[in-house]
Amino acid sequence: MSENRIIPVVLCGGSGSRLWPASRESYPKQFLALAGDRTLLQDTVLRVTDPARFGRPIIVANAEHRFIVAEQMAQIGVQATIALEPARKDSAAAIGAAARLAELQGHDATILVLASDHVILDTEAFLEAVGTGAPAAQAGRIVTFGAPPTEPTSRYGYIRPVAALDAAPGVRAVAAFEEKPDRARAEALIDEGCLWNSGNFLCLARTLLSELDRHAPAIAGPARVAADKAAQDLDFLRLDAAAFGLADAKSIDFAVMERTAFAAGTPAAFGWSDVGGWAALWEIAPHDRAGNALVGPTAAIDSVNCYVRSEKPMTAVVGMTDAVVVATQDAVVVTTRDRADGIKTLVAELTRRGEPTALRSVLSHRPWGSYQIIDDGPRFQVKRITVKPKRRLSLQRHIHRAEHWIVVRGAAQVTLDGVDRMLHENESVYVPIGVSHRLSNPGVIPLEIIEVQTGSYLGEDDIIRLEDDYRR
Amino acid sequence: MSENRIIPVVLCGGSGSRLWPASRESYPKQFLALAGDRTLLQDTVLRVTDPARFGRPIIVANAEHRFIVAEQMAQIGVQATIALEPARKDSAAAIGAAARLAELQGHDATILVLASDHVILDTEAFLEAVGTGAPAAQAGRIVTFGAPPTEPTSRYGYIRPVAALDAAPGVRAVAAFEEKPDRARAEALIDEGCLWNSGNFLCLARTLLSELDRHAPAIAGPARVAADKAAQDLDFLRLDAAAFGLADAKSIDFAVMERTAFAAGTPAAFGWSDVGGWAALWEIAPHDRAGNALVGPTAAIDSVNCYVRSEKPMTAVVGMTDAVVVATQDAVVVTTRDRADGIKTLVAELTRRGEPTALRSVLSHRPWGSYQIIDDGPRFQVKRITVKPKRRLSLQRHIHRAEHWIVVRGAAQVTLDGVDRMLHENESVYVPIGVSHRLSNPGVIPLEIIEVQTGSYLGEDDIIRLEDDYRR
Repeated sequence: MSENRIIPVVLCGGSGSRLWPASRESYPKQFLALAGDRTLLQDTVLRVTDPARFGRPIIVANAEHRFIVAEQMAQIGVQATIALEPARKDSAAAIGAAARLAELQGHDATILVLASDHVILDTEAFLEAVGTGAPAAQAGRIVTFGAPPTEPTSRYGYIRPVAALDAAPGVRAVAAFEEKPDRARAEALIDEGCLWNSGNFLCLARTLLSELDRHAPAIAGPARVAADKAAQDLDFLRLDAAAFGLADAKSIDFAVMERTAFAAGTPAAFGWSDVGGWAALWEIAPHDRAGNALVGPTAAIDSVNCYVRSEKPMTAVVGMTDAVVVATQDAVVVTTRDRADGIKTLVAELTRRGEPTALRSVLSHRPWGSYQIIDDGPRFQVKRITVKPKRRLSLQRHIHRAEHWIVVRGAAQVTLDGVDRMLHENESVYVPIGVSHRLSNPGVIPLEIIEVQTGSYLGEDDIIRLEDDYRR
Repeated sequence: MSENRIIPVVLCGGSGSRLWPASRESYPKQFLALAGDRTLLQDTVLRVTDPARFGRPIIVANAEHRFIVAEQMAQIGVQATIALEPARKDSAAAIGAAARLAELQGHDATILVLASDHVILDTEAFLEAVGTGAPAAQAGRIVTFGAPPTEPTSRYGYIRPVAALDAAPGVRAVAAFEEKPDRARAEALIDEGCLWNSGNFLCLARTLLSELDRHAPAIAGPARVAADKAAQDLDFLRLDAAAFGLADAKSIDFAVMERTAFAAGTPAAFGWSDVGGWAALWEIAPHDRAGNALVGPTAAIDSVNCYVRSEKPMTAVVGMTDAVVVATQDAVVVTTRDRADGIKTLVAELTRRGEPTALRSVLSHRPWGSYQIIDDGPRFQVKRITVKPKRRLSLQRHIHRAEHWIVVRGAAQVTLDGVDRMLHENESVYVPIGVSHRLSNPGVIPLEIIEVQTGSYLGEDDIIRLEDDYRR
């Protein structure tokens, strides 16, 4: 890139297990509207869309989530480069590959590395901080945004700003990164003027890469090659799997920040939260007079300072203080604001049990839309399927199941054994076992059908794809 | 009845709102399996089925619950007289009418009045207490079962046993009934040797009626006439509505027990609980080492002395102490064992809001089986319908909706515009708007169908019944 625009690099790889059951590995927190109408990812990207200042963002995501990212960008009308990680390698490799992609656009490319799952309440202050940091970044510094601590928490790392940088007003060199200290140490750090490490930072792409070369060559090399050999696949850019697979799995803090001599920091008083758990969401949510934050169909009787969130069931607290209650269609967690971090332990326990709700949500996203299992029993299963306008499922057949489709909204084009027919609201069709079939939405509104499957085996893996728009 | 068998009178009129959301007005606690495999009503009736000692029970129930009672009796193979209250008139009128029904069977009939929604852990001790009380009852006493108090609670009434009755070993006259005292008074009563009034008692039917005549003539008269004019309706005995409607609404304690000179009591150390709330269920449930009682798909992490019950969603507590969490498919309540009585206030609040979960459960019982709404949206609704063997729905038609039926288990006989056809597993049929139709299960296993309704209005009241086996 020959111009001075900053390229946002948005990291989308987190799994957000502390926000279970709303957040699941199959659909983690960055994709949820946890603090407003838009998802955390959408808010993150929309903050950096001013074309005078920012270039096309690079979103680094887990391949499994690619259609979710694409859909969420389409919803907000943002064109982004969606780079897919072939494997989970922590943040350093992902950032390294993204830096290389930016560098390929121009030798002087500046990158703004952003977590996709944080909340920033004051966008103007955030953009101002980015402006403050830019000259130092362009002079070769890695400028982190340090949030003013409000409590001596052990949940965050701390940075120690020292000498002011002459060339960059508002930016100071950072002498040390200190990872998650205990409470006493955190109090001391705060007394010394240390800041929370927000994990978001600004630098030249080549600064990042050369520091990776210096401090983590086993990441730098593979990340570069993975980017250089990246291949376009539909709307996605697939990082080279063979190369990426060779990278060490380390966080950027561990690989670079704690070792580099070029760290700098600028205070980030822009209402930052990493939304690390339900307690953080209680803090930023609107409260009633009793201090309760109630989201969705909820009720609170004689309760104080509770966070109650429901996606579906009527969810009520009676006589509770500091409780956190989160209910989805298939799971409920009850804890307190103090103890909510234990949800991570819970998810590990449920995963160990093989509990399906541990990792997957009832709503499954597909490139053509989504489906939800609404009922099941021995030898049958009922789904509600939504197909986006102008999309279609793969041409497929099943070995073990027959399907009944009833259109309840919109219009469907159904192909059975090569024969097309239209199906309108309140019409149905039967798809016998073994017959090749395809469901399309040729219309301009979403198509909704109720699908009743019957058969001896109803797993998602009984699909023989004969043709697919999405190369699955 | 010329013999000496005791006629159980089982009162089924409670609404159990303290056990929301498991218990709803449409399906209250006596019909739930809260403390074992059978429902509280079933356990209550099964305790008194020894034909050598007990006659055919009389169950007094709300007319709205009649098919539930009939079904639950059929499940345990018990023949009962199901007397339907035409209106809610509290316990005195219901007991009066039942006493009259018993008296009509024989001048010396003894009745054993039992709440249908209590738990009794030690059936043998219970039956022994009934045996102990019987001679005094037959001598004209009203013998209540007084439970030894385990705490000075305000939730119960207390009885004060005084002089032993010469003719009846183990039974003492009762000097006073004291309604729900405060804690200090309760402590004093316990020191004086008072017992909890379990609300269950034994007496001659004519003793009860003559005491009603004496102390509550505005109940005695109407109750007698309601019983005398009762009419058989299918498997039910409908108390006369005009007469019953004239009765005062009073509890039996207030109408008779606190006034009669014939009260007596026998200690009832048979593990009695009125299951008045979730805290009581925690007490009688099996606990894990940390004191948690977990029922259904649940998990507890770092939690102590909690009651967690789920009918469907995976429900977990993390770092909780003394919490009560109850989750059904459509509602969740979170409280503590101390504060669980506040659920009554919650249900009142939800009722005021017009919240559908306040009073009705997702599973609706019908004489032919049951149905459950599994999904809904604008202009459509999906139900799972279960039809018992050899039962059929009414012949009906709808003005606003069409229906698709897909058989997922069993076999259906479908009548459309007078034409019969059989439908087997994995077959479907379409019922257009306005067409008369009937669904029958001619088979020997339950029939399950998925029904997809579409139309502009989907309320239960869009049913024109042309013919009905159940006279609805």
